[in-house]
Amino acid sequence: MSEKRRILTGDRPTGRMHLGHYVGSLRNRVRLQHEYECYFIIADLHMLTTKNSKEEIEQIADNARGMVLDYLGVGIDPTVSTIFLQSAIHETYELALLLGNLVTVPRLARLPSIKEMARAALMDEDTIPFGLLGYPVLQAADILLPKAHLVPVGKDNQAHVEITRELARRFNNQYGEVFPIPDDLVEGDTLPGTDGQAKMSKSLGNVIFLTDDAATVRKRVFSMYTDPNRIRADIPGNVEGNPVFTYLDHFDPDKAGLEEIKARYRAGRIGDVEVKERLANALNAFLDPIRDRVAYYAAQSGLVDEILYDGTLRYREIAGQTLREVKKAMGITGTFNRIARKAEERKKKLARQ
Amino acid sequence: MSEKRRILTGDRPTGRMHLGHYVGSLRNRVRLQHEYECYFIIADLHMLTTKNSKEEIEQIADNARGMVLDYLGVGIDPTVSTIFLQSAIHETYELALLLGNLVTVPRLARLPSIKEMARAALMDEDTIPFGLLGYPVLQAADILLPKAHLVPVGKDNQAHVEITRELARRFNNQYGEVFPIPDDLVEGDTLPGTDGQAKMSKSLGNVIFLTDDAATVRKRVFSMYTDPNRIRADIPGNVEGNPVFTYLDHFDPDKAGLEEIKARYRAGRIGDVEVKERLANALNAFLDPIRDRVAYYAAQSGLVDEILYDGTLRYREIAGQTLREVKKAMGITGTFNRIARKAEERKKKLARQ
Repeated sequence: MSEKRRILTGDRPTGRMHLGHYVGSLRNRVRLQHEYECYFIIADLHMLTTKNSKEEIEQIADNARGMVLDYLGVGIDPTVSTIFLQSAIHETYELALLLGNLVTVPRLARLPSIKEMARAALMDEDTIPFGLLGYPVLQAADILLPKAHLVPVGKDNQAHVEITRELARRFNNQYGEVFPIPDDLVEGDTLPGTDGQAKMSKSLGNVIFLTDDAATVRKRVFSMYTDPNRIRADIPGNVEGNPVFTYLDHFDPDKAGLEEIKARYRAGRIGDVEVKERLANALNAFLDPIRDRVAYYAAQSGLVDEILYDGTLRYREIAGQTLREVKKAMGITGTFNRIARKAEERKKKLARQ
Repeated sequence: MSEKRRILTGDRPTGRMHLGHYVGSLRNRVRLQHEYECYFIIADLHMLTTKNSKEEIEQIADNARGMVLDYLGVGIDPTVSTIFLQSAIHETYELALLLGNLVTVPRLARLPSIKEMARAALMDEDTIPFGLLGYPVLQAADILLPKAHLVPVGKDNQAHVEITRELARRFNNQYGEVFPIPDDLVEGDTLPGTDGQAKMSKSLGNVIFLTDDAATVRKRVFSMYTDPNRIRADIPGNVEGNPVFTYLDHFDPDKAGLEEIKARYRAGRIGDVEVKERLANALNAFLDPIRDRVAYYAAQSGLVDEILYDGTLRYREIAGQTLREVKKAMGITGTFNRIARKAEERKKKLARQ
C-alpha cells in the first residue's frame, strides 16, 4: 500500500446514479480521489440483506456496469482509484464472521438505520433477516480490509462507522494493533426530488439520471414542482425550499445571474417558464461532459468490465494481506499452520525412509 | 462424493473427551462410521462465539490434537472418516454469510440454546455477541457444505438442525435444488457426573477422561457419590439414580453378574467398596484399549496432525464444490464471471492488435 491515507466508500448495485447521488456523494469522491487512495465498493453482498431473489441477483452485473460507467462519467479516474465487486472477495465474508463475535446484538439492534432499511424493504421487526442486523458488521469488514482511514457516508450510515471504530478498537486491544481507527466524513447535501419531496430517490420516481438525454432532462425540469401558491407569473414566489432554485444553486455556475433571477422571482417579475428554461440549460450543460464520458467508455467493448475486474483483483491482494494479518494476530493461522507443519514434516520423513 | 449417505457432527475444541462424551456421542459415531460417510468437525469458529481471547485461541491446536487422539482412541477410523478444522475452510464463512439473509432475527433469538450458551459463558441478554446469535447459521453452513443427510446432535442442538432444515428448504425453493434436507439424530445418553450431578462436564470437575490412567480412574471411582442414606453396608440402597450403577449399566459387560450385585445392594448385603471395585475394574477394562490406541497414535510424531491436515484438505474439496453450486444457483458466480469474461475478451483482443 502507498503512503497516502485510504478511503473506502461505495454503493449497492441497485440501478443507475442520479443527480441526488452526485450532490450526495459522487462530487465528493471526485474531489478526494487524488488526495486519498480510494477504494469504491460495489456492495452486492449488502444488497442481498434486503434484495436476494434470483431475479434481483441476475441484475447485479448490469447494474454494476452501469454504476461503474456513472462513476467514470462524473470523473472517477480508474487509473488512480480502485473499483471492486464485494461478492468476489472471500476475505470480506471471513472478516465479517470474525468481527461478529466482537459486537453485541443489542448494540446493533438499537441502530435506527437497520429498522429504516427493513421498513424500506417492507419488512417489520419480526421479519428482519439476521444478515440485515449484521449489515454494519459487513460494512466494518469492507472498511477494515483496506485499512481505510476515512469513510465518506450518508448521515444514515454514520452510526455504522462508529460500529466499525468500536470493532477496530476492540480488535486492536484484544489481539494487537492491526487496524487504523477510521473517521467518517458525512457526505454532501441531500437533493430534493423533482416532485419537491425531501430526497431524490429512484423508488419515489422523482429523479433525473446522470445519463438522461437532454430532451428527457428538459421534460423532467418542466414538470418540476415549484412554489404551489404561484399560479401566475406576477405573484411573488418563494425561493427557499423551492427545488428548482435548490437545483440552480447546485448546478448553475453563473451565481450573479442566478441572484438576479431569484430577486425577480421573489418580486413576481418572472415566469416559471424562464426559470425552468435556465435550469434545463444549466443541467444539460453540466451533464453534457458526463454523458460524453459515459458514451466514450461504453463504446469500448469490455472496458468497463476490465476496470471492475482489474480493480477487484487489485483489491483481492490487499484484502488477502490484511486478512492474513488478522488471522495471525488472533492466532487462527497459527492453529492450522502448526498442524500443517507437523503433518508436512511427517510426510517428508516418511518419503525419505 | 460416494453413494453413501453423509453425516456431519463434531465438537468445539475446548479440551479432552471424557466418559460423558463417549456415552453421549462418540459411541454412536463409531457405530455409524461404516454405514455413513462421516465428517467430524473441530468447530473452532463456534468456540470463538463465546471464547475468543488470544489465550483461548492459542490452545486450539493442542485441544484439536487431543480431540482427534480421543476420536481415534474410541475407534474412529481416519481411513473411512474425515476429521477437519472448521476455521481453515473459507467456504464455511462464505456460506454462513449467505445463509444469514434467509433466517430472521426473532427466529434465532427465540432459541433457548443461545441464551443457555450465553449464560454458561457468563453473558447476559445485553452482552450476547452477534456471532453467538448466528451460532445455528454457522452450524447450518457446516451441515450443508458436505450436503449431510444426518446430523447426530445433543438434545440442546436439535433445534439448530431444524433451523438448518428451514434454511435448506428456503434456499432450494428460492434458488433451485442444491441441498438435501438433513435429519437430526438425537445422540446417546447423558452420563451423570461422578458427584451425582445430572451431567458429566469438565467445568463442573466431575469427569473421568478417556485418557485418565488406571490409578486416576480408580481414585475417581472411589470418591464417587452413591446413595447418601447408606451409611453402613447393611442398609438397603437405591440403585436407581445412583451414578455408580448408571456407570456399571454402561460399562460392565457382565450383565448377569451386575443384576446379582444390584439385588444385593437393594437388600443391604454388599459394601460400597465391593461395588466400586467392580466399577473401577470395568472402567479400566473398557478404557485399556482406548488408552492403548491413543498411545499408539501419539507415539508417531505428526500422525495426528497429518490425519487432521489431510481431512481438512479433503473437506476443502467438497466444500469448494458445494459453494460453487450455491453461488451458481444464486447467480453470484454469474455476476463476476460475466464481468471477468468480457474483461478477458478485451485483454485478448488488445493483445492481438
